[in-house]
Formats: sequence, structure tokens, C-alpha cells
Amino acid sequence: MRLAELSERSGVSTATIKYYLREGLLQPGHRTSATQAEYGEAHLRRLRLVRALIQIGRMPVATAREVITATEDESLDHHMRLGAATWALPEAPGTGDEDATHQAARAAVEALLDRLGWRYEGALAEYSPAYRTLVDSVAALNRLGYPCDLEHLLPYGRLAAELAVADLDTVQEQPTPDGQIEAAVALTVLYEPVLLSLRRLAHAEESARRFAGRTP
Amino acid sequence: MRLAELSERSGVSTATIKYYLREGLLQPGHRTSATQAEYGEAHLRRLRLVRALIQIGRMPVATAREVITATEDESLDHHMRLGAATWALPEAPGTGDEDATHQAARAAVEALLDRLGWRYEGALAEYSPAYRTLVDSVAALNRLGYPCDLEHLLPYGRLAAELAVADLDTVQEQPTPDGQIEAAVALTVLYEPVLLSLRRLAHAEESARRFAGRTP
Repeated sequence: MRLAELSERSGVSTATIKYYLREGLLQPGHRTSATQAEYGEAHLRRLRLVRALIQIGRMPVATAREVITATEDESLDHHMRLGAATWALPEAPGTGDEDATHQAARAAVEALLDRLGWRYEGALAEYSPAYRTLVDSVAALNRLGYPCDLEHLLPYGRLAAELAVADLDTVQEQPTPDGQIEAAVALTVLYEPVLLSLRRLAHAEESARRFAGRTP
Repeated sequence: MRLAELSERSGVSTATIKYYLREGLLQPGHRTSATQAEYGEAHLRRLRLVRALIQIGRMPVATAREVITATEDESLDHHMRLGAATWALPEAPGTGDEDATHQAARAAVEALLDRLGWRYEGALAEYSPAYRTLVDSVAALNRLGYPCDLEHLLPYGRLAAELAVADLDTVQEQPTPDGQIEAAVALTVLYEPVLLSLRRLAHAEESARRFAGRTP
């Protein structure tokens, strides 16, 4: 298909498509003349992923490019490519604090992961963005005087493990390794607002039942 | 305590505290002379909440002020004050699309909430930021060709309901109505990165088990 049709079918303006092409987020089309190129279903699919990463995942363009590069790196095995892609996803910025509260938070997180049977030690913990975000968030809660110890974290951890099984099942429904990596990236990012908005709706529902006498 | 001690105990610089005072995020201290004021434990606690909302919750200053105003509005009942506060929390920006995919997403969300027994109809659904985020996110997934129908949403919804019960239990541990509202706001925001980072760690663990032969 031509650029105009790619724009129409993807809902992305031709100016934005050209920008993605220049930035290396979208692979070039098959050139048919000095001024025209043909695009296929692969372009359409990539364009939808790029748009979702940037619009829904609120990911900077440079990060989206890293994610896409990682998903295409043939030198990595499947688990590593999945990991490289999802590690590049944006996280809340770290606080960088290293006080006693922070050390206590790290100890609570270690105890939690140990209890869950997850293997995060040494470099794997040190450099994992999600691990750092978790420790920072637990420290922030404790600094505010809100409880966030093993007892409070365990239900969250157990539910996260249940979600991961369902999510990886969905990833494995994709027939090709590339498709699985693309799905892992997209589902990681795109299910985050689903999960958070459902939790907020559930809060409101539970609050109405407890404080405003709503019956289920 | 004086401003310097408030700064030391909260870890917030005096310049930032003065900015929060000017912006109305922090209640004024008790003036003891033309140039000095006394601050108490309430200031310390408020300061930690403001810092958490802005740093951890990545909330704009104007929104943090709305949240704090809502928690102080005596004309609202407890459920409404909780709701007003948490409704002001930032969400992913809406896509504003209203095409067939979006309508299908809305239908899927309605079916989900109906199955869960949550009451979101009419204005309650129309104006709830979390509801709009949920519909937008489901539409984005479907546009990309990733499955997000009732079957995929139900486990997320059931787990969200379980978390809400645990979260509201924590909120109700706070002895005063004001403390409960403050806790609801803080826990809503501060547990979001906990939940998302645990989900990402769980993904990596589950991926290692499936694709790299890691044993639990």
C-alpha cells in the first residue's frame, strides 16, 4: 500500500509516519520510484505498536526506539529479548535516597521475593528498574508512616504472580518469537492502565459499599 | 518547631517548603514574630504527603492542591471526600476517539463491571476518569490486535477487587476520617508503582521459568 493508505488504515498522519521513518521507529518501505514506496501489513502492525508505546505507554521516542531495537536483536535468546525490551519501559524516577528507611525497604523487598520464590539477587536486583522502583516505593510509603511490610506486600506479590501467568499465556498465543516479544512489550505497557483503572474503580466500589451503604 | 527543623525532619528544603506554603499546599505555621512561625506534627505529616503526591505520584502542583482541598471539604460525606480526592489523581490522557473499536471497548467494560457486580452507570461512568482510562486502554489493545475481551479482563477485575478489600482495610486502620482520606489518597498513588513493579518482576520470573529453564 502507499503512504496515504498506511496513514488511513493506521489512523496516524502522514507527517507523523514520516517522522517515525526518520527516527528509525518504522522500517523503510519498499521503494518503487524516486518519490514513492510500498508498505505492507508489517508496517501497519509496527505503526500501531509505536503509536501505542508513545501514546498509551507515554514513552519518549528514544526509548521506544531502544525497545524496538531490543526486540529485533537476533544475538539475544528469547528470554533476554523479552527482558531487554521490557526493561527499557519507563518507570517512575528513582529517589536515589540511601538512608535507613531505604535499607529497611530493601530488606522487606528481599524478604518478599524470597517468600514468593522469585530469584532476584546481585546484579539482577541491582540493575532491574522494576526492582529499584519497588524498593523506592516501599521506602516512600514507610517514610509517610503508611504500613508497607511483608504482610501488606504479600497479597500484591501473589496477585502479580497470578497475572504474570495469565499474561505469559497471552504472549505465547502469538505464533512467532518476534510476535511474542512485540506482544510482551505491548501487553506490559497497555495492561498497566487497565490494571490501575480497575483498581481505582474497585476502590470506589468498595468505598461505596463500606461508607455509603451500597449493596453488591 | 521552626522552619529549619521542619526542613530537616521532612527532608524537604526550606525553599521548597516556602514554595508549598505560597501555593497553599501546606497550611501556614503559627506566627510567633514578624519573621518566624512555629510548625507542628500536622505540618510534618502534610509535607510528607505533598512530597509523595508530587514526587511519587508525579502529580502537578495544581492537582495536588485540588486533592488536598477535597480531603478538607467538610460539606462532603466520607465516601464523597475519598472519591473527590482520588478522582483528582492523574490518569493517562484520554484518546478522545469514538469509533467502532471504542464502542466495542465500552461494551466489554460494561459487561465486565456487570459481571463483577460493580455499579457504574450513567453519569458515574461518564465522568469517572478511571472508567474512561479503562475504556481507552481496552480500545488501544484491540486496535493493536491484542486480545482484551471479557475473558482476559475478568482475572484483572477479580484481583483488583481483592486488592481493594485489602487497601480499604489499611485505610480503615487510620483512626480519624481525615486520616482515612489522607491514607486513601496516599495509598492509591503510592501502591501503584508497587503493583506495577511487582507485575514486571513477576513477568521476568515467569518468563525465566518458561523460556530459560529457571526452577522455582
